[in-house]
Amino acid sequence: MTAKPDFSKGNGLLPAIVQDAESGEVLMLAFVNEEAWEKTLETGKAHYWSRSRKQLWQKGETSGHVQLVKEIRLDCDLDTLLFKVKQLGGAACHEGYATCFYRRFEGGDLRIVEERVFDPKEVYRK
Amino acid sequence: MTAKPDFSKGNGLLPAIVQDAESGEVLMLAFVNEEAWEKTLETGKAHYWSRSRKQLWQKGETSGHVQLVKEIRLDCDLDTLLFKVKQLGGAACHEGYATCFYRRFEGGDLRIVEERVFDPKEVYRK
Repeated sequence: MTAKPDFSKGNGLLPAIVQDAESGEVLMLAFVNEEAWEKTLETGKAHYWSRSRKQLWQKGETSGHVQLVKEIRLDCDLDTLLFKVKQLGGAACHEGYATCFYRRFEGGDLRIVEERVFDPKEVYRK
Repeated sequence: MTAKPDFSKGNGLLPAIVQDAESGEVLMLAFVNEEAWEKTLETGKAHYWSRSRKQLWQKGETSGHVQLVKEIRLDCDLDTLLFKVKQLGGAACHEGYATCFYRRFEGGDLRIVEERVFDPKEVYRK
């Protein structure tokens, strides 16, 4: 029997937490359906399902900031994934930060606590 | 203006990644609605919305394994939360492991790669 996430849950769309395999920093969260799961296994590169664009995407297909999946963990309920990755380009966030979680909530305010790694205007110009 | 997560998204239910504030280990994922958010801020203890039981719950209310929230990060889209916590009792998972992600996916199999911290039958007996 082949183990896999339980895609009968979450309307077939499960959250994947993405963590830097070396530093342990949490980089982002995205959603994975069965197609994205299969593509990720097949290629070793993180694939997700975009809920806004309603399509499969490979992380980094525009920016080049591909995520090489080093390890996959599944949670106790088999409905959440943890991808431990090597983040190419050093930044997961389309805003140019290493992590999407670059703002700390402090008593009602949001404070940027990370350094920008790249300029989004340079990377995403079309 | 008070910053907060964008509860207009995800039908008012946003994923919260829970990370050990010291070790950086990812412990679990749960969902937060506006009520759980307010309760978490008010008490400093992680509160979530249970999708299966359809009710607010404080993590650890049965097991005593409360999560003290040390830091909150919000992502670029304001629709995912990161709680950095001190996990009381040393274990977040109801299966008795420090992390819910105690199984590694290895070529179609799931392998337990963490040690059990407690016996669920002892902690959750009713």
